[in-house]
Amino acid sequence: MSAEQSVVTAAMLAIGDELLSGRTKDRNIAYLAEFLTAIGIDLREVRIVPDETADIIAAVNALRSRYNYVFTSGGIGPTHDDITANAIAGAFDIPIDYDERVLGPMAQHYEKRGMELTPARKRMARIPAGAKLIDNPVSMAPGFQVENVLVMAGVPSIFQAMLESAAPGLKTGTKLHSVTLNCNFPEGTIGDGLAAIAQRHDAVAIGSYPRFDGKNYSTQIVVRGRDEKNVADACREIRRMLSEIKA
Amino acid sequence: MSAEQSVVTAAMLAIGDELLSGRTKDRNIAYLAEFLTAIGIDLREVRIVPDETADIIAAVNALRSRYNYVFTSGGIGPTHDDITANAIAGAFDIPIDYDERVLGPMAQHYEKRGMELTPARKRMARIPAGAKLIDNPVSMAPGFQVENVLVMAGVPSIFQAMLESAAPGLKTGTKLHSVTLNCNFPEGTIGDGLAAIAQRHDAVAIGSYPRFDGKNYSTQIVVRGRDEKNVADACREIRRMLSEIKA
Repeated sequence: MSAEQSVVTAAMLAIGDELLSGRTKDRNIAYLAEFLTAIGIDLREVRIVPDETADIIAAVNALRSRYNYVFTSGGIGPTHDDITANAIAGAFDIPIDYDERVLGPMAQHYEKRGMELTPARKRMARIPAGAKLIDNPVSMAPGFQVENVLVMAGVPSIFQAMLESAAPGLKTGTKLHSVTLNCNFPEGTIGDGLAAIAQRHDAVAIGSYPRFDGKNYSTQIVVRGRDEKNVADACREIRRMLSEIKA
Repeated sequence: MSAEQSVVTAAMLAIGDELLSGRTKDRNIAYLAEFLTAIGIDLREVRIVPDETADIIAAVNALRSRYNYVFTSGGIGPTHDDITANAIAGAFDIPIDYDERVLGPMAQHYEKRGMELTPARKRMARIPAGAKLIDNPVSMAPGFQVENVLVMAGVPSIFQAMLESAAPGLKTGTKLHSVTLNCNFPEGTIGDGLAAIAQRHDAVAIGSYPRFDGKNYSTQIVVRGRDEKNVADACREIRRMLSEIKA
């Protein structure tokens, strides 16, 4: 990797019993993966844990020390099973309390809608001390960032809106160049040739993805790397290898 | 929990760069979650890691010591990026070699189809020593089980078929009873009442899931527990609480 290239890494922590019981199909992981790839951040690991404080704290601490960023989803709503904010405070061992920056706008928000600021709703103003707020243009109650951990909602529309709010403040790295080659051979036919090319081109990652349309197998080959020339070189060799099989 | 009730836990490890780049949306996590819940196994954690041996080994070893079962998906095909079998052997520190139980049927399988048994395809016969095979009725190359770790394919149709093959051999626990209550109040309106009920009913888990149809918020409340009576008791209290808000 040349000097101008840089790598920024991230992990995601999705929080919620409903993701582990099958009740809810997560839609945030794939969204975040695509979003981060597009802006030059490498998503390196994902974990899903239940609504259990000890599990959240253990996962946050394992991930935040290992990656540049950790993005969490879920558990910041107004009900008793929303324990993420407290768990984040626990992970960083910092105090958490009602945050004046949130309480004021929150009171206005609900008053305007003729809704009561119940203790449950007020819970959403509990923010760990010193956290940066992440704007929520959908439903007011913000996410927040403590050091390198960004805490966001689980509802996909709100998760996505918070990600938009937070993105301009993120450090990003050199984007990956990615080229996809489709071929009508099954993986087993091209596997040996591909392995030899992969070994000669260690500056790129070559992925091989089988497809089956119910009758025939085909393969999608994805070449990724931070240097465009390296990616092009590997692709040229792969195309030549494939054309020799055809011949 | 009464004496006849038992808990069997599991984790899932999904393996593949493509899941973390956003190229592929995982479809196995939600499938496994629903499948395990239905047969009485609690999915407690999910991790997604890239095609990196060290990451796979670390995750397998962290998860297999903590849960009754670990289910992996991905990385057992014929190409150079399929490194799961080797990583599993590494995690257990056991040898791995071509397995006669697989090589014979594999040779027949490809001969019948007029396909060559390339070195790449032969790689799929590499199985850690002492592993139990998991039948693959879709495309022949089997999954395998080493102690409490079940190693399966990433292609959803094959993952699902292997899960069917493996299920009869799994130890299962007492199934969770689950009741879903829908209400037309937003979470913030019912949150305080729900929290009080949750505190009195610690034998059940009460989940609260907001919905937004673009205009109105509503809430789905899910009560889960191993004892049917405990679930029914909590539901009764929740219904009463909701009716009092209506009044």
